[in-house]
Amino acid sequence: MKVSIIGVGHVGSSLAVALVAQGFIDKLVLVGRNRKAVTGEAMDLLHASAFTRTVDICAGEIADTAGSDVIAVCIAGKSLGHVREGAKTSNAVILREIIPALAAGSPQGVILMTSNPLDSMTTLALQLSGLATGQVFGSGTLLDTMRLRVLLSQSCGIHPMDIRAYVLGEHGDSQFAALSSASSGGARLPISHKLLKKHVAHTIQAGYEIYQAKGYTNHGVAFASASIIKAIALDTHEVMPVSTLVRGDHGVRDVCLSLPAIVGRKGVIRTLKVELTAEERQAFRNSAKVVKATLRAATNGG
Amino acid sequence: MKVSIIGVGHVGSSLAVALVAQGFIDKLVLVGRNRKAVTGEAMDLLHASAFTRTVDICAGEIADTAGSDVIAVCIAGKSLGHVREGAKTSNAVILREIIPALAAGSPQGVILMTSNPLDSMTTLALQLSGLATGQVFGSGTLLDTMRLRVLLSQSCGIHPMDIRAYVLGEHGDSQFAALSSASSGGARLPISHKLLKKHVAHTIQAGYEIYQAKGYTNHGVAFASASIIKAIALDTHEVMPVSTLVRGDHGVRDVCLSLPAIVGRKGVIRTLKVELTAEERQAFRNSAKVVKATLRAATNGG
Amino acid sequence: MKVSIIGVGHVGSSLAVALVAQGFIDKLVLVGRNRKAVTGEAMDLLHASAFTRTVDICAGEIADTAGSDVIAVCIAGKSLGHVREGAKTSNAVILREIIPALAAGSPQGVILMTSNPLDSMTTLALQLSGLATGQVFGSGTLLDTMRLRVLLSQSCGIHPMDIRAYVLGEHGDSQFAALSSASSGGARLPISHKLLKKHVAHTIQAGYEIYQAKGYTNHGVAFASASIIKAIALDTHEVMPVSTLVRGDHGVRDVCLSLPAIVGRKGVIRTLKVELTAEERQAFRNSAKVVKATLRAATNGG
Amino acid sequence: MKVSIIGVGHVGSSLAVALVAQGFIDKLVLVGRNRKAVTGEAMDLLHASAFTRTVDICAGEIADTAGSDVIAVCIAGKSLGHVREGAKTSNAVILREIIPALAAGSPQGVILMTSNPLDSMTTLALQLSGLATGQVFGSGTLLDTMRLRVLLSQSCGIHPMDIRAYVLGEHGDSQFAALSSASSGGARLPISHKLLKKHVAHTIQAGYEIYQAKGYTNHGVAFASASIIKAIALDTHEVMPVSTLVRGDHGVRDVCLSLPAIVGRKGVIRTLKVELTAEERQAFRNSAKVVKATLRAATNGG
Repeated sequence: MKVSIIGVGHVGSSLAVALVAQGFIDKLVLVGRNRKAVTGEAMDLLHASAFTRTVDICAGEIADTAGSDVIAVCIAGKSLGHVREGAKTSNAVILREIIPALAAGSPQGVILMTSNPLDSMTTLALQLSGLATGQVFGSGTLLDTMRLRVLLSQSCGIHPMDIRAYVLGEHGDSQFAALSSASSGGARLPISHKLLKKHVAHTIQAGYEIYQAKGYTNHGVAFASASIIKAIALDTHEVMPVSTLVRGDHGVRDVCLSLPAIVGRKGVIRTLKVELTAEERQAFRNSAKVVKATLRAATNGG
Repeated sequence: MKVSIIGVGHVGSSLAVALVAQGFIDKLVLVGRNRKAVTGEAMDLLHASAFTRTVDICAGEIADTAGSDVIAVCIAGKSLGHVREGAKTSNAVILREIIPALAAGSPQGVILMTSNPLDSMTTLALQLSGLATGQVFGSGTLLDTMRLRVLLSQSCGIHPMDIRAYVLGEHGDSQFAALSSASSGGARLPISHKLLKKHVAHTIQAGYEIYQAKGYTNHGVAFASASIIKAIALDTHEVMPVSTLVRGDHGVRDVCLSLPAIVGRKGVIRTLKVELTAEERQAFRNSAKVVKATLRAATNGG
Repeated sequence: MKVSIIGVGHVGSSLAVALVAQGFIDKLVLVGRNRKAVTGEAMDLLHASAFTRTVDICAGEIADTAGSDVIAVCIAGKSLGHVREGAKTSNAVILREIIPALAAGSPQGVILMTSNPLDSMTTLALQLSGLATGQVFGSGTLLDTMRLRVLLSQSCGIHPMDIRAYVLGEHGDSQFAALSSASSGGARLPISHKLLKKHVAHTIQAGYEIYQAKGYTNHGVAFASASIIKAIALDTHEVMPVSTLVRGDHGVRDVCLSLPAIVGRKGVIRTLKVELTAEERQAFRNSAKVVKATLRAATNGG
Repeated sequence: MKVSIIGVGHVGSSLAVALVAQGFIDKLVLVGRNRKAVTGEAMDLLHASAFTRTVDICAGEIADTAGSDVIAVCIAGKSLGHVREGAKTSNAVILREIIPALAAGSPQGVILMTSNPLDSMTTLALQLSGLATGQVFGSGTLLDTMRLRVLLSQSCGIHPMDIRAYVLGEHGDSQFAALSSASSGGARLPISHKLLKKHVAHTIQAGYEIYQAKGYTNHGVAFASASIIKAIALDTHEVMPVSTLVRGDHGVRDVCLSLPAIVGRKGVIRTLKVELTAEERQAFRNSAKVVKATLRAATNGG
């Protein structure tokens, strides 16, 4: 399993550490703007990896990513939906430069997006790549889903993995929790509707809270991405809410949004048909509108 | 984490191997009728454990189990519900002899039952133990649930853990799948009702099939038990369908049957309130009837 | 990583459980004389694997092993050097039948021998296979080495992995511990020579002790084999004392004996040049003599 | 296993990520100067941990570390021996303030030092703590040892764990490799003396190289510390070269330096008696001299 990380800022670095610590990859290529700093990071990580499982780690250029099984794009690494227009444009410009080259070098690989604004950048990357739909997707609302589950876990005293509640739509302010289908052990979540709503609201705020406290967010999205990469590496066919091209679900198409998807060696294998209430359906369509607007701005601006 | 295994036949031995290979326990006491053979097994396992994580393993008597965090009762090791009346009686007789002593030696521990007929033996063990309700429970339909998920996984192409379907009731012929609440990723299982029914029927037959092929069943129930012991060891609060005292759910009480339960350091923390259809509810009550009859026979006969 | 196990007796079954519990393989083929029983074992293990990492497990014939990364030959499963002449002949006869077919089906794979008498059977299998030297080797004294380390660990209070003492030569009565180079942390083992000798003597007896207690030995050699398979799967280049063709070391050639060897994706990559005392050197040559005699008997007899 | 990290800079943060990713701890308290930033870090890590094993993570004060099994002191986080006198003084001043309080709150715990200058700060912390000798020690030359092994591994094609070469003495420029006892598989390292010397020289430079490239070093020492904490958590009795109070070895006493030590639940259980050549012995004494001078400066200056 060869993994390449494009962008070695807060997110890329935390992702590298998570991958090295978990020991299921063989080769890691780090690509960043500051080649010298990235060389130091690679050397430091190489020493670290000898304490878990030695990984062949090096700093490189786009060309060195050729033959990757997974390429994680972590450029800019803003982990909030609200970023300045300038930043958005910037990421779009960089994607236009790098995605075709990355896709050409790893035609059998998967491109995993973590760069914000997540859903529009994932849509753009998919368009630029020329790869199959399932090969390019974003970490999406997997992190938001886990944030909600952590809060619910604390209230219900149940392991997060056994709280089957999903946050869907945009990895941003228009996201929504598909509460109508939330369950645990085949039962309704043992929690009041009021507290549930409070946790959903808190989930949307979590990123901002971390951002305001430490100036960036990284570990959450890094570990979400590591779990996606593990699902790809081991071809687990786990169901994860990730940002993938929507093709008609709930009246939406031509844009990447998060739906529960089966993830394996080839990326997103397919999405599942979630039943949504009228309100949830509306929220999903609203997410589509928001992302399409962002995408237009990024495309025109860039 | 000190674990004791009572009964070192096919199931007990496979459970010991699974625990040693997974490396989350510190101490293992094996108690069996043939002390000499068990001593050999302990020595063999000790050598094996040095290849994963060294475990302090020894053969012992009931007294050596004192201070256990978990005691797995694997006597007789019949893994089929249909056992001869003689065998049933025998297990009941043995439980009367050993459970009070086991409970007295590990008053803070958990007693995990795997001996058949599972639900009646679990009910009996709970009565004999004098321990809190959550401290004595059986592996129940966790194995049946996983067997069903494996079949569904093969049909749906989804990881078993993400197929949220539960087999409940008796670990025996009267078991039933709570299909009304089955889901994956918050969506209905992507499978026809006909195929679903076929898999449910196959699940009930799986144990017999293995039994007829190799003369006993052990690895499935051993790994189910190992996963329960891991949930206890790491206090994970996972939701598992295990055989625990039912206290009024769906009109049943005073008997152990499988319901989705939260499992942690102290055993079963509580069960979840599953909504059942009228038919499922009836099946659950029928399981109660079957187990109570078996229990009466075992109690009178023993 | 596709692994095939030939011979599903005590050793083969324990190896399968260890592999399933450790979760680093993708596909497992079980080949045994009693196809029906092996089918039951495969089904039972498939259910078990869903609790750790789902493995694609099936019962099969030699033809189904094609394309294996590792083939573990566990026929007969006698885990003692002292076996009746009849048994020896039998294993040799079986090897003549199966090894060419196994090698033809998996020309890039590794054949790992655990069948006794280990070193002569490994030598025979290598000859019959037509594969490269490093592709066919036996578990050898890896188990004896770990048994010695466990005893030393108990006396010294040091983790077995950090006790660098090796048992070399024959996996049988003529084995010897290369004590002149034994160390821990770069220091001499903190133990008296007398106690050290006692542990070495005990190590040779360990197999007999287990055999006499339970009638066979399996878990130790199974876990040793699982650790070898893991080294192959992850291409770790670990140093392990395994039975491999000796090519002139200490005056020995044309026979498989255990020497410290580097193990990776392609099997034994090379052996290390251990310095032996005159006495140890003599013991190594004696092992060669013993194994060659057994090999001649097996070849003539078979 | 409750772990506290004091100082949440580059090293503390990478250590937290490594611990969360490896999943063997239950509770993590982060203590840093900027409480707000640390609160954000804790929240981010809590979300991350739900993808591996949920850890109870919070930001806190010294008082919140009470009852810790391990306290990792990562203040300042300079990972080079060459630090400005100001920085040294500063660390010493901080230690005087925090160590007595940390030790009082966790009298049964282990204090693991990673702050530089490592050996003098470890000596000082031990003096200030009032704890038993084995309870306070530093990550020492464990990282340097692994750096050397990684280089040797690349030259020899052998897994780093099986290259038994140790860097001892000061975690700084006066460190030395105990080459006279270096071995692999009981054999001499299969490498020329010239290349060996080159790798030893490169090892000392590695920290500077990383520092010059990226401005700090963190992952290597963080993973070394995580492996020490794992040895404590699982009471493994692994042999690790860590900075511990020397009591007469090779003519040195009253200062902490790295020697191969057995590490378990209670910290350093004891050191091993390494045989050194006259030259190595001299290097060890020189390390003692250097560290004592630094300690005097720190003590007077602070």
